[in-house]
Amino acid sequence: MLWHAVFYIFGGLMLGQLLNNVRNKGVLIHNITNYVTVNDVANLLLASGARPIMAEAVEEVEEITSICQGLYINIGTLTKDTVEAMHLAVKKANELNHPVILDPVGMGASKFRNDTVNSLIDQAKFTVVRGNVSEIRGILTGVCATRGVDTADGDEGSLEGIDEVIAMTQELSKRIDSIIVATGIVDVISNKDKTYLVHNGNKRMSDITGTGCMLSALIAAFITSNSEKVFESILAAVSMMGLAGEIAMNKMESGDGNATFRVRLIDAISTMGAQELNEGARYECR
Amino acid sequence: MLWHAVFYIFGGLMLGQLLNNVRNKGVLIHNITNYVTVNDVANLLLASGARPIMAEAVEEVEEITSICQGLYINIGTLTKDTVEAMHLAVKKANELNHPVILDPVGMGASKFRNDTVNSLIDQAKFTVVRGNVSEIRGILTGVCATRGVDTADGDEGSLEGIDEVIAMTQELSKRIDSIIVATGIVDVISNKDKTYLVHNGNKRMSDITGTGCMLSALIAAFITSNSEKVFESILAAVSMMGLAGEIAMNKMESGDGNATFRVRLIDAISTMGAQELNEGARYECR
Amino acid sequence: MLWHAVFYIFGGLMLGQLLNNVRNKGVLIHNITNYVTVNDVANLLLASGARPIMAEAVEEVEEITSICQGLYINIGTLTKDTVEAMHLAVKKANELNHPVILDPVGMGASKFRNDTVNSLIDQAKFTVVRGNVSEIRGILTGVCATRGVDTADGDEGSLEGIDEVIAMTQELSKRIDSIIVATGIVDVISNKDKTYLVHNGNKRMSDITGTGCMLSALIAAFITSNSEKVFESILAAVSMMGLAGEIAMNKMESGDGNATFRVRLIDAISTMGAQELNEGARYECR
Repeated sequence: MLWHAVFYIFGGLMLGQLLNNVRNKGVLIHNITNYVTVNDVANLLLASGARPIMAEAVEEVEEITSICQGLYINIGTLTKDTVEAMHLAVKKANELNHPVILDPVGMGASKFRNDTVNSLIDQAKFTVVRGNVSEIRGILTGVCATRGVDTADGDEGSLEGIDEVIAMTQELSKRIDSIIVATGIVDVISNKDKTYLVHNGNKRMSDITGTGCMLSALIAAFITSNSEKVFESILAAVSMMGLAGEIAMNKMESGDGNATFRVRLIDAISTMGAQELNEGARYECR
Repeated sequence: MLWHAVFYIFGGLMLGQLLNNVRNKGVLIHNITNYVTVNDVANLLLASGARPIMAEAVEEVEEITSICQGLYINIGTLTKDTVEAMHLAVKKANELNHPVILDPVGMGASKFRNDTVNSLIDQAKFTVVRGNVSEIRGILTGVCATRGVDTADGDEGSLEGIDEVIAMTQELSKRIDSIIVATGIVDVISNKDKTYLVHNGNKRMSDITGTGCMLSALIAAFITSNSEKVFESILAAVSMMGLAGEIAMNKMESGDGNATFRVRLIDAISTMGAQELNEGARYECR
Repeated sequence: MLWHAVFYIFGGLMLGQLLNNVRNKGVLIHNITNYVTVNDVANLLLASGARPIMAEAVEEVEEITSICQGLYINIGTLTKDTVEAMHLAVKKANELNHPVILDPVGMGASKFRNDTVNSLIDQAKFTVVRGNVSEIRGILTGVCATRGVDTADGDEGSLEGIDEVIAMTQELSKRIDSIIVATGIVDVISNKDKTYLVHNGNKRMSDITGTGCMLSALIAAFITSNSEKVFESILAAVSMMGLAGEIAMNKMESGDGNATFRVRLIDAISTMGAQELNEGARYECR
C-alpha cells in the first residue's frame, strides 16, 4: 500500500480541490478530435463541468481557439485539412499561453500519423502528451509496434517493466518539454524528473471505444482549470477517470454489458464529488 | 397558472394530434448537421416517428433533398464543403416548397459561422430558425456575445427580460420571414406578431451535448408532418422536448448521472403518447 | 419449425464455435464508414471481441488496411475524398487476400451512391455485400425504390415473396462472386446456389439508427476470424445480431424506450456466450 502512504504526504484534500475548480470554473475547451468518439468527448467534458466546442475548419480554428481557455488535439481520424487546422490552432494557443494537450491516437499505425505527430511536436509546445505506452514509445524511439489504436503486446503497462516506462516518459518529457502520460494497467505521469503512478481503473475500460480520448479531454479540463498546479491536476484527472471505471464496474448487474458500462462511466464522472475522489484515488510518487 | 388557462382556450387535444401525425406519417428528413451530435439527431428523429437521412456531399445533396419531405441545416461543425452543400440543399428545398429549419450553432463564435448564417438567410427562406437567445440575438444585431456554443451570461432566457426576447424574436421574424425559436429557461416561439412561451424542461438538459440539435430535429419532424399548422406544430415540438426532459429527470435514481439522463431523454421521446403531451405541455400565448 | 430440424443437421455447436473464434482472436478491422453510426460500429466490434480502427485519409488508408486483418466499407455518408480512400483500401485488401464487406447504405438514393457502389463492385472483389432488400435489388437491377436509407415498401422481406428475394440474391452472388446478405423481417444469406434464412430479430431493431451498420461490422468480425468457414460465419453473425435484439427486447421494462433498447442490444453482443447463440439461433437452409 505504498500509494496510501504517499497519498497522505501529498495532502488528502488536494485532488478534490482541483476537481472543484473544474466544476466551478466551467472553462471552454476547443477540441479538434476524431469523429468516432467526439460525442463521448463532448459529453465527458460537460460531465466534468467544463464546456466543449468542436471546430476544425481552417477558416475559423484560430478564432475558436482564441475564445476558449484550453485546446485538445486528437489525431484519431486525421485528414489533410484537419492537420492544417491543428497546426493553426496549436500555434494560436501557444501565442495565448493556453494549455494544450495532444493525444497521438494510433501513432505508429501509419507514416501520416507519425509525420503529423512529429511535425506538431516540432512546431509547437504541448503542455501534455497522453497516449498508451506503445504510442508514447513510438514518439520517443521512432520504432512503432502499435496494434492499430491499441497498446501493442507487452506494452500494457503492468508493474513489470514499469521502470522502463518511467525512464522512457521522463526522457520524452525532457526532450519535448511536455508532461507525458502513458496509460495502461498502471498509468504513468512524468515530467523530466518526477513520476506519479496511478493504480485506479480496470481492464473493462478498454472494452469500449473512447476511454483514452475521454481521459485526454478530462486532462484538458483539469489543466485548464488549474493552471497553477498543472502536474497535480493531471494526477487528479487520471485518478478520477480510473476511479470512475471502478465505480461503473461496481454498478454492473447481471446481464449488463459494454454499453451499460459506458453509460455508468460517464455517469460517475458527472456525479463524483471531491471527497469521493480524495478517498478513492490510489497513486504513488516515484 | 396563466398557461393552463390558455391551454384550454387553445384546445386540449391539439398538440397530441400533431404528435400523432409525426408518429403516423414517417416523413423523411434530410439532415446536414455536425458530427458531434449526429447520432443523437438520427436517433431522436427515429424516436419521433420520422426517418433521417444524412448526406452532405455536393454530388448528391440536391437529389437527397428531393427524395425527402423536410430539410434540417445545423452549422455545428462547418467546413467549406458542407457550406456549399447547405446552399445547394436549401435552394432545392425552397424550389420544392419543403419546410427547412436552420440551427445556427455557435453563431457569433467566428466570422466563418456568422458569414455562413448570414448568407444562408440572405439567399434562402427558412421556415424556422432555432437557436439559444445569444445566437438569435447575434443574427438580429450582428453583435455576438456567445460563449462558444452555449448561451452567454444574461441570455439564459428566464422570465426577467423575457419581454426583450419576445420583441427581438418578433423583429427577427419580421425581417427574415421565418418563425423564430429562442430556447432558454423559458423557450420563446415567435412569428412577426405572436409569441408562445414554453415552460417545460429543466436545467439538466444543458448538461449533455445535443439537446438543442435534437430539438431542432424534432421541430423538423413536426413541421414536415403538419404543414397546415406549422406554428402550432413548433409549439408541440418544443413542449414535447421539454416534457421529455422532465420525464427523464423523474426517472433518475441515486447514482445516475448525465449519460443515464440522455438515455432517458430519448426514451421519453420514443414512448410519449398524445395524451401525455396534452397533459404535460405548459405554455402561454403572448 | 423447419429451421430447428435443419439446425440439428447443421450441427449444434458450430455457430458458438465461430463466435468463440471472434472472442479469442481479437482481429483488427479497418473501417471506412459513415459519421452517423461510427461510434456504434466501433463499440459493436469491441463488444464482439474484435478491435476497430477507423481511417479514411488517402494518405494512410493502404497502410492501415495492411496492418489489419479485415476491411469494412460503408457508404452511409460519402464524400469525394472517402470514395477515393475506399478504392485504395479495397484494392490493397484484395492484394492481401483480406476479407472485405461492403454495406451499400442508401443505394438508389442518389446517382453518387449508385456510381460509387457500381464502381467499387466493378473494380474489386467483395467477400460479402450486405444491405436491405431494396439496396440489394438496386445493385442487381439498377432500378431503385429505396426510401432514403430504409427498405422500400414491399421490400421488408417477410416470408411472402421470399422466393423472389432468394432468387435475386443468388443471381447477384453469381454475377459479382460475393456472398449476399439481404436483411429484413427474414434475413437472407446467399451464395450462388445455396441460401440460409435467419428468423431471429424483431421490428424494434429498425427503431434505432445503426442496426444495419453494426450487423455489417459484426459480419466483418466473423468472416475475418473464421476464414475457413466464411459462409457459416456470416450465418452466425446474422443470427447473433437478431438474437441480441431478442435478448434486448426481453429486458425492456415499463417506460424504457429506444435508447435503452440500443444499450441493451450492444450489451447482449458483449455478453452472449457460445451456448446461448447455439440455442437461440433460428435459421433454415434452402
